Amino acid sequence: VRPAALLFDVFGTLVDWRTGVAGALRPVFAAKGIAADPLAVAARWRAEYDPAMAAVREGRRAYAPLDVLHREMLDRALAGAGLEDRLGAAERDALAPAWERLPAWPDVPEALDRLGGRFLLAPCSNGSIALMVRLARHAGFRWDAILGAEIARDYKPKPAVYLASAAALGLAPAEVMMVAAHNGDLAAARAAGLMTGFFPRPAEHGPGQASDLVAEGPWDLVAESPGALATALGA
Amino acid sequence: VRPAALLFDVFGTLVDWRTGVAGALRPVFAAKGIAADPLAVAARWRAEYDPAMAAVREGRRAYAPLDVLHREMLDRALAGAGLEDRLGAAERDALAPAWERLPAWPDVPEALDRLGGRFLLAPCSNGSIALMVRLARHAGFRWDAILGAEIARDYKPKPAVYLASAAALGLAPAEVMMVAAHNGDLAAARAAGLMTGFFPRPAEHGPGQASDLVAEGPWDLVAESPGALATALGA
Repeated sequence: VRPAALLFDVFGTLVDWRTGVAGALRPVFAAKGIAADPLAVAARWRAEYDPAMAAVREGRRAYAPLDVLHREMLDRALAGAGLEDRLGAAERDALAPAWERLPAWPDVPEALDRLGGRFLLAPCSNGSIALMVRLARHAGFRWDAILGAEIARDYKPKPAVYLASAAALGLAPAEVMMVAAHNGDLAAARAAGLMTGFFPRPAEHGPGQASDLVAEGPWDLVAESPGALATALGA
Repeated sequence: VRPAALLFDVFGTLVDWRTGVAGALRPVFAAKGIAADPLAVAARWRAEYDPAMAAVREGRRAYAPLDVLHREMLDRALAGAGLEDRLGAAERDALAPAWERLPAWPDVPEALDRLGGRFLLAPCSNGSIALMVRLARHAGFRWDAILGAEIARDYKPKPAVYLASAAALGLAPAEVMMVAAHNGDLAAARAAGLMTGFFPRPAEHGPGQASDLVAEGPWDLVAESPGALATALGA
């Protein structure tokens, strides 16, 4: 297992979107006397993620960056929570960039620093370049480039996203390892010809998480944590 | 003058392509007993740059990354220098990545570090993502993202390259400053609505350089050096 570059999934794998988004909602809810659980609304917001991207993946909609989708998803999440009358457009606009200010899982920054000493590193996320740039600043990640959905103008798990990311580095798919805490992401990367690396994030979805607790495919590398992955790769 | 992000020209502005390319040619010429001046051949190689990109800019050719153009340009430069029979394809293939290993001008790394503490930073170069990533590693630059020609799939000074780079950061053109040692680059950036910053590189083309010695347009910021530009921007 000797990749030239590592591509990382970001939401869930490197950052804790659930805590971060709930933390952005909480003071707004408190100020407006909204009794809803911020963690539950964060989960509703995230639940709109896949349907929003599906429209692009299936060609029913032209590529729009995730920032645009996040804002639309918030409308649907608030409606689903019965809160459509409680937040105005300006308040919603101010909440949407919560996705740029998510906390890194505590084991990530040091592991990325170690890996960066040995490999080219880039996110291969469905987040836009603008979102990934600001999130990297917030969370303390140093990337060699921002790859992923925006350069492919499509969304994972479409193969074009993995292939365009490898090609942008001037590398063959087999020279690049996709790293994610999500088996579905890795299955798609592997089908596109990339190497794959997994570590679990058993708290991504909160207590009672039932998916992605263990590796479910023949991944090239399975580790307990980003640090263990770095060690296994000699970084 | 309060930009949110700075975009940088790279070849000539941040790195010394003439010394770097000549330095890659010199040992090859020595090993093969080629008497040609490596600096002169480097200049011939660079002289093929604009004609090669013009084919893409004018729609006569689909976008091809600069790595591909550099390899083709080397063939023409060697032919122009009467060296077409002296270097084989494998030797030429090995020379083309010389553009990934150019030396930074000595005043650049510290200035970029200072500016990075205050602004988002990205190259807006005609170099590909793959080239810019490797050059950044070699020269010690830390970028927030790699923007420029490849994300626009066109070449400067076409306005699309500046506009796509600003848009990729989620910023309006007027929120972004293009920084270059080339007046033509800045004229195009300004016409596209960006702020502009200039410092001179009077040795880029060697002794006797006659162009770009001074600012020739109403640039928002004119400095003596990257460090002076950082100071003027409060970094």
